[in-house]
Amino acid sequence: MARFKLTIEYDGSGFVGWQRQDNGFAVQQALEQAITAFCGEQVTVFGAGRTDSGVHALAQVAHFDLAADFSAYNVCEAINYHLKPHAVAVLDAVIVDDDFHSRFSATGRSYIYRITERRAPLTLDRGRCWRKKGKIDTDAMHEAAQLLVGKHDFTTFRATHCQAKSPVKTLRRLDVERHGCDIRVYAEARSFLHHQVRNMVGTLMLVGHGKWSNEDISAALAARARSTGGETAPACGLYLSGVSYD
Amino acid sequence: MARFKLTIEYDGSGFVGWQRQDNGFAVQQALEQAITAFCGEQVTVFGAGRTDSGVHALAQVAHFDLAADFSAYNVCEAINYHLKPHAVAVLDAVIVDDDFHSRFSATGRSYIYRITERRAPLTLDRGRCWRKKGKIDTDAMHEAAQLLVGKHDFTTFRATHCQAKSPVKTLRRLDVERHGCDIRVYAEARSFLHHQVRNMVGTLMLVGHGKWSNEDISAALAARARSTGGETAPACGLYLSGVSYD
Repeated sequence: MARFKLTIEYDGSGFVGWQRQDNGFAVQQALEQAITAFCGEQVTVFGAGRTDSGVHALAQVAHFDLAADFSAYNVCEAINYHLKPHAVAVLDAVIVDDDFHSRFSATGRSYIYRITERRAPLTLDRGRCWRKKGKIDTDAMHEAAQLLVGKHDFTTFRATHCQAKSPVKTLRRLDVERHGCDIRVYAEARSFLHHQVRNMVGTLMLVGHGKWSNEDISAALAARARSTGGETAPACGLYLSGVSYD
Repeated sequence: MARFKLTIEYDGSGFVGWQRQDNGFAVQQALEQAITAFCGEQVTVFGAGRTDSGVHALAQVAHFDLAADFSAYNVCEAINYHLKPHAVAVLDAVIVDDDFHSRFSATGRSYIYRITERRAPLTLDRGRCWRKKGKIDTDAMHEAAQLLVGKHDFTTFRATHCQAKSPVKTLRRLDVERHGCDIRVYAEARSFLHHQVRNMVGTLMLVGHGKWSNEDISAALAARARSTGGETAPACGLYLSGVSYD
């Protein structure tokens, strides 16, 4: 038996999310079906992060076990062949130790949230970013974002149905960068609460639009109540950009 | 009567191209229908460049005339409203002099051709670039590209059904730049022959893959025969990125 670690890219638009659900097709299922198709084995593919419906991945990490003997190269090629026509691709496959677990061994997760500052509807970037009309002060957003970096009770930025045991997380990085009309928020932590990045982005947008000050951000964080935060930014702007391991 | 100049972005994937055809829906039609829908006038929208099916635009320019009195702002908003759900958007609208013609007044056109160097199938960039497996020597491509810059008979890089009167064009810029696995070819000229950019990119790829030398490029150009050039790079990697006027 060998354990394979996969690095996976996907367009989340057509999926109910990473994880199997009753109401549609999941990325996890697409991978499991492709694996069964090429080698006949029924496997479970374990992902490092459970991305929601519409959320994309540039480098999701997952693992699974195979009884038969295949090279990592052949596994990568065969899965990609059988994944067609789904918008999911294995970028890399390696054989890892049996004690590697994509989720429990992970020591960091990074996300990118894309915002486009423009009035016109999206065409090429449709389903790829959050379109916001009006001028966005990204310097102010970046400054306010630093108030969220560090160890905090993030209840204000947590989905009400989040199942994490504790709302306390350590946010390592929350940078807001602008390249023309393309704005990117970079978030890094060991792990995140459900909707945490999208809720932080939606709340920081209030600062970007001049409606909130730094003090409002601090007060919302301290209030520890979802109702005190801003809106949840749409799923389509979010990308799981990496998972790190020691 | 007022003449409006539009700057237009579109995802070319679902269209037969810019211009009206018998075999499907064109970007030009989408715009004309949207204009008729908001003001009732039957108009012809004239574009600066006739992009092929699958070719995208970041900033196509077009013009049309309206008898009724509308502000440029309202024209832009109304067209975008009625363009839904097509992946076409008006980025800007301005009122111009009656002697402005999007095509005949244009003094330059710029294109970007996107190549992705990777083995895995595309997901988020599907239909947005040319995926090429294997190492691509972009420095060699850029150097060879300079042999094509200037005034030449571009018959080797011209579609056999091209209707231009002369195959002689002056290529102002042909730069090949790499950002990680993302490779971009920037092409600028007053005007191009049909398929010229795609044929130049397909031919330069032979240099990138080490199959052709600079001498081969020069010989192909001098041969003035399409059969001596490389393949036509796929439409999905091409973007009309700008049109300039004096």
